[in-house]
Amino acid sequence: MTTEVVILAAGKGTRMRSKLPKVLHPVAGKPMVGHVIDTAKKIQADAIHVVIGHGAEQVQQCFAESDLHWAIQSEQLGTGHAVAQAMPAVKADSIVLIAYGDVPLVAAETLAALVAAANETTLSLLTVHLDNPTGYGRIVREAGAITAIVEQKDASEEQLGINEVNTGILAVSAEKLNQWLPTLSSNNAQGEYYLTDIIAMAVNDGMTVTAQHPQSAMEVEGANNRAQVAGLERFYQQQQAQRLMTEGATLADPARIDIRGELSIGQDIFIDINCVFVGDVSIADDVIIGPNCVIENSTVGKGTVIKANSILENATVAEQCDIGPFARLRPGSVLSNKAKVGNFVETKKANIGEGSKVNHLTYIGDSNIGKGVNVGAGTITCNYDGVNKSTTNIGDGAFIGSNSSLVAPVNIGSNATVGAGSTISNDVADEQLSVARGKQKNLDGWKRPTKKS
Amino acid sequence: MTTEVVILAAGKGTRMRSKLPKVLHPVAGKPMVGHVIDTAKKIQADAIHVVIGHGAEQVQQCFAESDLHWAIQSEQLGTGHAVAQAMPAVKADSIVLIAYGDVPLVAAETLAALVAAANETTLSLLTVHLDNPTGYGRIVREAGAITAIVEQKDASEEQLGINEVNTGILAVSAEKLNQWLPTLSSNNAQGEYYLTDIIAMAVNDGMTVTAQHPQSAMEVEGANNRAQVAGLERFYQQQQAQRLMTEGATLADPARIDIRGELSIGQDIFIDINCVFVGDVSIADDVIIGPNCVIENSTVGKGTVIKANSILENATVAEQCDIGPFARLRPGSVLSNKAKVGNFVETKKANIGEGSKVNHLTYIGDSNIGKGVNVGAGTITCNYDGVNKSTTNIGDGAFIGSNSSLVAPVNIGSNATVGAGSTISNDVADEQLSVARGKQKNLDGWKRPTKKS
Amino acid sequence: MTTEVVILAAGKGTRMRSKLPKVLHPVAGKPMVGHVIDTAKKIQADAIHVVIGHGAEQVQQCFAESDLHWAIQSEQLGTGHAVAQAMPAVKADSIVLIAYGDVPLVAAETLAALVAAANETTLSLLTVHLDNPTGYGRIVREAGAITAIVEQKDASEEQLGINEVNTGILAVSAEKLNQWLPTLSSNNAQGEYYLTDIIAMAVNDGMTVTAQHPQSAMEVEGANNRAQVAGLERFYQQQQAQRLMTEGATLADPARIDIRGELSIGQDIFIDINCVFVGDVSIADDVIIGPNCVIENSTVGKGTVIKANSILENATVAEQCDIGPFARLRPGSVLSNKAKVGNFVETKKANIGEGSKVNHLTYIGDSNIGKGVNVGAGTITCNYDGVNKSTTNIGDGAFIGSNSSLVAPVNIGSNATVGAGSTISNDVADEQLSVARGKQKNLDGWKRPTKKS
Repeated sequence: MTTEVVILAAGKGTRMRSKLPKVLHPVAGKPMVGHVIDTAKKIQADAIHVVIGHGAEQVQQCFAESDLHWAIQSEQLGTGHAVAQAMPAVKADSIVLIAYGDVPLVAAETLAALVAAANETTLSLLTVHLDNPTGYGRIVREAGAITAIVEQKDASEEQLGINEVNTGILAVSAEKLNQWLPTLSSNNAQGEYYLTDIIAMAVNDGMTVTAQHPQSAMEVEGANNRAQVAGLERFYQQQQAQRLMTEGATLADPARIDIRGELSIGQDIFIDINCVFVGDVSIADDVIIGPNCVIENSTVGKGTVIKANSILENATVAEQCDIGPFARLRPGSVLSNKAKVGNFVETKKANIGEGSKVNHLTYIGDSNIGKGVNVGAGTITCNYDGVNKSTTNIGDGAFIGSNSSLVAPVNIGSNATVGAGSTISNDVADEQLSVARGKQKNLDGWKRPTKKS
Repeated sequence: MTTEVVILAAGKGTRMRSKLPKVLHPVAGKPMVGHVIDTAKKIQADAIHVVIGHGAEQVQQCFAESDLHWAIQSEQLGTGHAVAQAMPAVKADSIVLIAYGDVPLVAAETLAALVAAANETTLSLLTVHLDNPTGYGRIVREAGAITAIVEQKDASEEQLGINEVNTGILAVSAEKLNQWLPTLSSNNAQGEYYLTDIIAMAVNDGMTVTAQHPQSAMEVEGANNRAQVAGLERFYQQQQAQRLMTEGATLADPARIDIRGELSIGQDIFIDINCVFVGDVSIADDVIIGPNCVIENSTVGKGTVIKANSILENATVAEQCDIGPFARLRPGSVLSNKAKVGNFVETKKANIGEGSKVNHLTYIGDSNIGKGVNVGAGTITCNYDGVNKSTTNIGDGAFIGSNSSLVAPVNIGSNATVGAGSTISNDVADEQLSVARGKQKNLDGWKRPTKKS
Repeated sequence: MTTEVVILAAGKGTRMRSKLPKVLHPVAGKPMVGHVIDTAKKIQADAIHVVIGHGAEQVQQCFAESDLHWAIQSEQLGTGHAVAQAMPAVKADSIVLIAYGDVPLVAAETLAALVAAANETTLSLLTVHLDNPTGYGRIVREAGAITAIVEQKDASEEQLGINEVNTGILAVSAEKLNQWLPTLSSNNAQGEYYLTDIIAMAVNDGMTVTAQHPQSAMEVEGANNRAQVAGLERFYQQQQAQRLMTEGATLADPARIDIRGELSIGQDIFIDINCVFVGDVSIADDVIIGPNCVIENSTVGKGTVIKANSILENATVAEQCDIGPFARLRPGSVLSNKAKVGNFVETKKANIGEGSKVNHLTYIGDSNIGKGVNVGAGTITCNYDGVNKSTTNIGDGAFIGSNSSLVAPVNIGSNATVGAGSTISNDVADEQLSVARGKQKNLDGWKRPTKKS
């Protein structure tokens, strides 16, 4: 039997107070429904169906590249109705896993176990034990077997004491769903078709209803407002922090790290407080990252030190580099081993050669810098003339005096020297000294300006 | 009947270990007693009396502009004595609400309900249920009616089990207060006149004593040391975070945002970790604020993005601007739509026109920059000659080459171009190119300096 | 009797996933075993013995300067075996305190009480009451007296209910240890010699076994993985935050401050969120420190304000200085009273005189700046010629125009003026004006570059 996943994602989410459909609100930088889709992929679902309604186009655009089946639920007539919209595209002999676009953090292991437990004669239900089950549908069992789900308002005093509750997430054969869904009734207070009612049908048909449980109750928490989204975000981040520590990272404070994407790490890494990792980031062994750094889609080589308040975006940093504090490596920054980029330095589309230093208050853009180069404080590569970007090339061993302006396109030769304060617009050959500045005049009898009234 | 509020604020707060009187210690940037005064104003009190003693002058100076009645309590002889100092200035036919300058976070709704419940024959008392009531005065009830407050040391075993406790906050007629206060006794271990004793008098006089409760027990927490102030600060910040999320902001971490003043927001705002908002800040729809930003007394228009580690102080930012990371907008910075202020850029008294870019390592002070201007990296407006500040004007479409110095007062015309590395002290007309730099000389045979011993 | 401490520090710590031996993993910037050594020193131990095994050399190197006795445990044969390795160097008539290199945060008071309670006839044991004692050795008492420690697996149903557990930390006479240790048996599941077994021996010998308790159960927590290290780190930081508040500092958020070393403070200090203090830091009265600052081995004088995102390393700052935001004071930065170092400014080996201002985008290295000097935005001291560092001296009252380059070695006289944009390589006398820049040329008919295809 194949496994197909039906994700309900049609809700508006009024309490979000947002233009964005609820399921697109992000947790860890990814739309909630994106988490569910990714988890469905992880358990090797043969097909993924997403039932959309409010903001349907926005949701579709967001996952344009994914191989998804879309089902439109034009009217919000309940969860049973929503699933029914997807069924025509579901293979008749499959096991169907029902998930929710606003319940983003169910673990793949949990869903896999749920699917594994379902078959032609068994409906597999995800339930959870809560300290305070108030408001949730209680799982009624007889001699251990699940016999019914009783909603809060219908529960007897005894049933209210049950703390095992329904999550709504379940796996069952498409055949049974196709048989039951058309028989659902909307004869209830909300006038909706409830998927939950199939549990009674399953019991009635003599099927077994088994329960699986998540590792943590937080896995099955949904979000209807931004406070709940924030709660899921923190749960997710705690899980990431635990994973990093298990893998060999020391975190100064596991409650103060944010990972929004895939962070892969080596061993013996230290990450200080308040660092944020975005997209695909890879950190090799022995890297030290100072407080308040933001690292996005970058690779950091072994033994590199990134000091406080540094920002890396689409940067490639080799081994034993020394970055920051207050450094900003923009896209296309490539540092070779032992390169140093210091405080208040911005780099962009810049190759910085082995052992070269750009220590202070400098902008290096569209540049190729060789090995062993020293770029003085306050140096600016003038890479933009208002319409075009041009390249600056600096040879191995060159020394660029402080406060220089290098007007691209321009080439500075190997072991060349540029005098401090020079504006260089012509090439400088290897070994040459180039100076471009006014002659110093010292004037006696200078009268300081006076305060104007 | 009018409502008058008496705020007790005479305590020293020895455990604060501070030169500052206790009630001036801030929560969310505002003195604790300032919170109480503001809440009294919110409930439309007809008069606000503040009883001061320790640091009386400091407290008065702090609220010099507020319309407050000051009463001096020279000796600290207890809460009853404190209230008595204020009574001569209280209208005889008013309802008096007694509040405390070191209990800053009682909600206006709570106080309003308390006042509403008081009348000529009813004393209205704020009580709270605590899991651990140890140390507090217990509320003794008979057949539901409050009959006494029993202090910890006087309580029977049964009374110690009561978890409803007195907060000291109450509303009662001035008439009754004037009758009771002179009869208070200081015949107790501390030798103080306790306001609490009026409860027994009220019961004795056949008055009804009713209780109101705060929404949260934290509302009635007071602070006697800095750890308790910090506890109140966190409670206040959590409340603010909840409010923002309800109103339509996504917070990366509700436990890592600080609001010290009034933050008003639109919808679909994202605020990353560790942002601090000070004073009056207004953020329009769709604004994204990166981590570690500090925004003070500023307005931010729709769709603007403020990147990591940026600081705004008394700045006005229009729509779709792009700020930071590492930008600092100082007072008088006014950005028009789509303006861009990039990394390591400082602006002060600066108008930045529509679509203009100041991207890197630049200081713009006392300047008016037109539309579509590009200011190159490392540009400095030299606005200060040691005594006077002067203005730099830059016309629409101008291009300021990198590392330029613009010596104010100076005017750069529309579509003018300044060559990189130039020091411009004379005006540049529209469309002109201006260059001011030394001629480049390349010298062969340059001998590098050698290491001195 | 003398007191000698034996610290067990031979474990590998496989679950740390680290090249570093477990006991060298830091809490608050100090190796765990370093905390134990320092606590042993605080209680005036006459000798400290450290039993090492895994990574023995690394541990020894880490404490090369400490006066420690090293004992090598080549094979990990249990705690009893470990202690035995140290005994040959322990004075026979001493009280021996057994501590653990991976249990770093036991308070000196706790250990002192433990030692004080031990004598020739009394073994003193540190025990703790846990809500959940599962897994720990239970303290069995008869008529109040300790009679045995029963391990989890050997405990009766009744004994499992005991919530007083063994910490392993104890004090006993060397004489008794020397008598008991050789008689320990490794006849158990792990085949190890357990120190715990001496409790039974003590009881058997008719000795009294008394228990002491830590102030907090966290004191006796050990760390076997990085998540546990992080837990200890947070406990330690909470303690530090509490101490600072008690001493007179207001913390914006006690959960967001990190102290890795010794921070001594005056009164009425404000420390904003996310500050990190490293090494020896001393902060005088009335200092205000903004968010996200990192302060390392520095002294800050009374009334100084350090604004957001500033970094101080080995800096000495006098009174009423104004630093930041985004300032970086590197080693050897010495600020006199009322000096000002502003945004995007880096200083290193720099004396900044009284009232002098270095406000923006500047690098001051190897410099002596007098009083009342104004250093314009974008100024760079060119202190490095590629091999040598040279000094810049600036006299009192000098005015350095913006975007200047001062090529060291160079002296700028008192009240001298340097014109904006100048590169100064020759000395400037007192009162002189020095200008070194190209003549400005304005050219009509300039044709802007066009977009290249």
